[in-house]
Amino acid sequence: MLRVVADRPNPYRRMPARSRTSAAADPSSARGKLQMRFRMRITDGGTIAVGPGKIALLEAVEHNGSITAAAKSLDMSYRRAWLLLDELNRSLRQPAVESAKGGPRGGGCELTEMGRELVTLYRRIEQQATDACRDDIRKLMSMLAR
Amino acid sequence: MLRVVADRPNPYRRMPARSRTSAAADPSSARGKLQMRFRMRITDGGTIAVGPGKIALLEAVEHNGSITAAAKSLDMSYRRAWLLLDELNRSLRQPAVESAKGGPRGGGCELTEMGRELVTLYRRIEQQATDACRDDIRKLMSMLAR
Repeated sequence: MLRVVADRPNPYRRMPARSRTSAAADPSSARGKLQMRFRMRITDGGTIAVGPGKIALLEAVEHNGSITAAAKSLDMSYRRAWLLLDELNRSLRQPAVESAKGGPRGGGCELTEMGRELVTLYRRIEQQATDACRDDIRKLMSMLAR
Repeated sequence: MLRVVADRPNPYRRMPARSRTSAAADPSSARGKLQMRFRMRITDGGTIAVGPGKIALLEAVEHNGSITAAAKSLDMSYRRAWLLLDELNRSLRQPAVESAKGGPRGGGCELTEMGRELVTLYRRIEQQATDACRDDIRKLMSMLAR
């Protein structure tokens, strides 16, 4: 049974800054700085079909060009990364990643159009959610003792 | 179709229906049914100051009237529940829960006005996020093979 994301510690903390949206805000985890994080998951029965873990992995694949490097950047085993991508590929109408055969990057892995669309859509949803709730989030944050 | 439902594994699943908001909706996790879940967390350095776990605990306290019963309803140890509430109380400008001293419910625990406001605000944020992203979430779900 694959748990995609441990809620805490958070895989995003290990992601390069540029692969994070403003919705995911600041990668620093310095004490004393309030950060809001919206996370969306789509579950299919017992499985998290789409969630922050798989999206972060797709972004890492896109950035690194291989599952090995992507897994390493997320401090994840190759096996786990492979299983997550395989599960994701099978849950979508079309695969999100494909092996890059031949050429100088032979043996690598890259996002398909479907994969890129998925990432874009997911990050846009997070941003929309954050924008829509800005006032209430500010209100909630103001309830915290600083 | 699009509703905010509880995370998995999820404290809400063990909560009585009436203590759930409509935003938390359907407890079923039947296979083959796509469900979207939005979760918001506010972190303060390494700590989740406000997140789904603490909000679920507040709702359980409100419903059950004591930490013991609330912890039990969430399949959580009393100690863990107490620590989470203590942490929450200290992170807010005013406590979210207080001991109910004296009277027929002496020894119990109840939400303060701050506690109730926090729960309401948190659930409203989840629902707002869902409403704001309805179209894109539908689009994302349509990418999944069914």
